[in-house]
Amino acid sequence: MTGTLILVRHGQSLWNKDNLFCGWVDIKLSETGREQARHSSRLISESGYVQPDVCFTSRLSRAIETANIILEEMDVQYVDVFKTWRLNERHYGKLQGESKGHILETYGEEKYQFWRRAYDGCPPLSEKGDKYYSIDDRRYLDTPESELPRGESLRMTLQRLLPFYTSEVDPRLKKDQTVLIVTHGSIVRALVKYLYEISDEAISKVNIPNGIPIAIKLDADLKPLTSEFEYLDPERAKIEAAKVARQGYETNSNTK
Amino acid sequence: MTGTLILVRHGQSLWNKDNLFCGWVDIKLSETGREQARHSSRLISESGYVQPDVCFTSRLSRAIETANIILEEMDVQYVDVFKTWRLNERHYGKLQGESKGHILETYGEEKYQFWRRAYDGCPPLSEKGDKYYSIDDRRYLDTPESELPRGESLRMTLQRLLPFYTSEVDPRLKKDQTVLIVTHGSIVRALVKYLYEISDEAISKVNIPNGIPIAIKLDADLKPLTSEFEYLDPERAKIEAAKVARQGYETNSNTK
Repeated sequence: MTGTLILVRHGQSLWNKDNLFCGWVDIKLSETGREQARHSSRLISESGYVQPDVCFTSRLSRAIETANIILEEMDVQYVDVFKTWRLNERHYGKLQGESKGHILETYGEEKYQFWRRAYDGCPPLSEKGDKYYSIDDRRYLDTPESELPRGESLRMTLQRLLPFYTSEVDPRLKKDQTVLIVTHGSIVRALVKYLYEISDEAISKVNIPNGIPIAIKLDADLKPLTSEFEYLDPERAKIEAAKVARQGYETNSNTK
Repeated sequence: MTGTLILVRHGQSLWNKDNLFCGWVDIKLSETGREQARHSSRLISESGYVQPDVCFTSRLSRAIETANIILEEMDVQYVDVFKTWRLNERHYGKLQGESKGHILETYGEEKYQFWRRAYDGCPPLSEKGDKYYSIDDRRYLDTPESELPRGESLRMTLQRLLPFYTSEVDPRLKKDQTVLIVTHGSIVRALVKYLYEISDEAISKVNIPNGIPIAIKLDADLKPLTSEFEYLDPERAKIEAAKVARQGYETNSNTK
């Protein structure tokens, strides 16, 4: 018996609501997003999992705010929260700030799905001067700009994520700790792909809903005890994941 | 030229409001306290100080919540927040949970002021089984109970605080960083006593208001550049500090 990993995608952001590619753009939670964060906290509490020993999140406000709300609702605000760019959303390159519907319309379905879901789908890289280049922000001053992504496939995202995961998360799981990671859709996809050895093909069909935790018990080799990952609220997760899959196809489907 | 230290006492808690000895009891912010936290954030922003590089706070919710609000209002939520019991309020021993007015009435002014403000005033120690023993809480599981206080004078508080300060804060100040410490009244008193070499006698007259930051520029020897500490809002600080001094003397003075 070793540790427990709890993965949560942040609550809905104002751009999720409007179906824009967000990536490293620092967009805040919507009111629905804050409610989703509170709900995910209740799901963790009610599931019988022990309180987290530590929380990791990204350097983006929508994930940090979700983490703070979860810890506050669980009354465990004293848990340390570490913030790393390696848990940031996939960098969507030049797609950042564009509407999903517009990209679908302009480039067609194949390209849209390739950029959005294919394991090796890397969007056009952003360049200095682009409105949403994002990596020259003060929050990344502690990292050389050359190490930061300007556009990533899911494979590239997993590659920059793993050094953090193996050095910070694995040792804590080995010590039987419960690790809460509050992060972004692509990061959750990358982590479940890695942990459950999901094929490059199959991962393109996986969509992660906002604010529904996935709890993973790991064995002594840090492999999941179950063969498939499970949400703490599987029924709602199915409905919400289907909505994520449809983004871009239904104009403003989530804005009402 | 080296670093900058910003010290903030948390916003008003529900027990500050009711004039109870709080210490290590985990009491949340009042609505006034949340507003004070937002105000202290604006004071830091408007003062022209650079954004904090790191934030340290205690394991008590009223300080953590204040820190989260300050960082959110400054739009620097990505700053790491470290939480340590060494920044917890002074442990008030058996006085925890008692009303200040009641203690003043029962034990008389001399004893009351000795416990509250004298540098060596150590209240009666709390014992296992006391309602507000506090140190057997799950948030301190990572520290042997024998290392934790059951009642402290300000001198004892400074002693347990210094190992943290010299190992975590000093090195960052030496690197020209801006360190934000969001903590408690006695901790701010202990730190200004230490930094400004305030006498044991004089420190008994120092009262720290909620949510008004003190910004301290330090030289290469980590000594303050000014001879006395200054609040970012000196006029309001004077009024509020006088109110803190009067606590216990005016029954329920702050509860209306």
